[in-house]
Amino acid sequence: MRDVTRRQLLGPIAAAAGACALSSCWSGKTGPYADRERRPESPWAYAQLDPDVTAEKAYRDYQKGHCMYGVFAGLVSQLAERYGEPYQSFPFGMMAYGAAGAGGWGSLCGALNGGGAAIGLFVAGEPQRTLLIDELFLWYETAELPAHVPESPILEMEMPRSTAGLVLCHVSITNWCKASGYKAAGKQQKERCRRLTADTARKTAEILNRNLAGQSFAAADFSEDVCGCKACHTKGSEMENSKGKMSRGSCHFSLAGEHP
Amino acid sequence: MRDVTRRQLLGPIAAAAGACALSSCWSGKTGPYADRERRPESPWAYAQLDPDVTAEKAYRDYQKGHCMYGVFAGLVSQLAERYGEPYQSFPFGMMAYGAAGAGGWGSLCGALNGGGAAIGLFVAGEPQRTLLIDELFLWYETAELPAHVPESPILEMEMPRSTAGLVLCHVSITNWCKASGYKAAGKQQKERCRRLTADTARKTAEILNRNLAGQSFAAADFSEDVCGCKACHTKGSEMENSKGKMSRGSCHFSLAGEHP
Repeated sequence: MRDVTRRQLLGPIAAAAGACALSSCWSGKTGPYADRERRPESPWAYAQLDPDVTAEKAYRDYQKGHCMYGVFAGLVSQLAERYGEPYQSFPFGMMAYGAAGAGGWGSLCGALNGGGAAIGLFVAGEPQRTLLIDELFLWYETAELPAHVPESPILEMEMPRSTAGLVLCHVSITNWCKASGYKAAGKQQKERCRRLTADTARKTAEILNRNLAGQSFAAADFSEDVCGCKACHTKGSEMENSKGKMSRGSCHFSLAGEHP
Repeated sequence: MRDVTRRQLLGPIAAAAGACALSSCWSGKTGPYADRERRPESPWAYAQLDPDVTAEKAYRDYQKGHCMYGVFAGLVSQLAERYGEPYQSFPFGMMAYGAAGAGGWGSLCGALNGGGAAIGLFVAGEPQRTLLIDELFLWYETAELPAHVPESPILEMEMPRSTAGLVLCHVSITNWCKASGYKAAGKQQKERCRRLTADTARKTAEILNRNLAGQSFAAADFSEDVCGCKACHTKGSEMENSKGKMSRGSCHFSLAGEHP
């Protein structure tokens, strides 16, 4: 396990060696944790997952525990099926708490919370872990979603797409309702979030695959273009009373009344 | 395990029986999961934790993986120390992903994400799980925090308090900066979040203790008083294009420009 973890963190050098993880040295019942008495600390070893299989699995897993559960189980339970322990003892059901922005609060999109949790499970080093999260969250803010076409749709419908604009469930759903004309909390919105769960699981698998293969991730640009608040409010600025990377547009959409 | 779980869900009837969980039938090396070959699905069994001990532990654990890690490990690692498996095999390090609103994004406060994850681990039934999350999140929005006084402070300082107003890291920190005059991303703000982590772990322990003891939780009131958006935007309303329970005040603080 120690070798595998180091390999994940070594970046480009590890690309060739990493291929080993996909074949005989990890395969079958031996797996990365053949010795059950070893209790692995995180990060746990990751192995390449098929993004399309992952998306379809997450789409189905949504039915068992909603968005966060769908993404996390869609990814990690495949390793449980392939290798057994320690993956199969993970208490997957706990992830249901993240539904609809955590307990229905509309904060961080549960699909992203599940993707973040999976990245946290498999990637411990910094800045690597944060680079992967940035890649996932920035994709989510700007992609036209949902894009997943289920093999056998739970709800058959022509699916409108929208850009979430922000990583928050509340904003993401409202933007889709505006674009589609459908109501929040309807069966179409549920199908939208089910397919979005599939998309987010696919993207997370792609990112983790690239990381395992040693591909590098560029630091994202969180400049003024992304967040108009930074000039006055973030580190090194005059007021320096704010943190975070979220796009300002959809929250403080009119500052005319009280803001300079 | 099955008995313990059922006891957790039965509510008031279980109060007397629940006391058993604190004494001989769970104590020592036997614990709730004496048979290692059983791989428990979630929810995992909870046992009463001392809220003050939990707070102090979370304050220290913050040093290892920030806010989400601090709350989750502050709670769950106590059961690992007391009972061993399956708690001690939980990959605690994964929870570092939730730092500063998930990878530094400023979305859901990591301390709340850690508290939610712990509630998710120990409470599977609905509406119980959501009632507990509501209790925790509503407390966070309105409490004067941080309140924890560390036994041996990592940073000695007179600690100003503020109300977070919202469950988002970004807003919570900005409100504290405004109240305290300190900058975001400074050592005082870090000490503030370390103590807030302690407070959130204490509150989560209190809520889980009450749940284990069979005390009931009232459904929270998310009426117009809490969210001025509901009249037009949520379920059953004219537009019905929004979801969530967050307070509107601190985001859309001036709608004059574009909003009817």
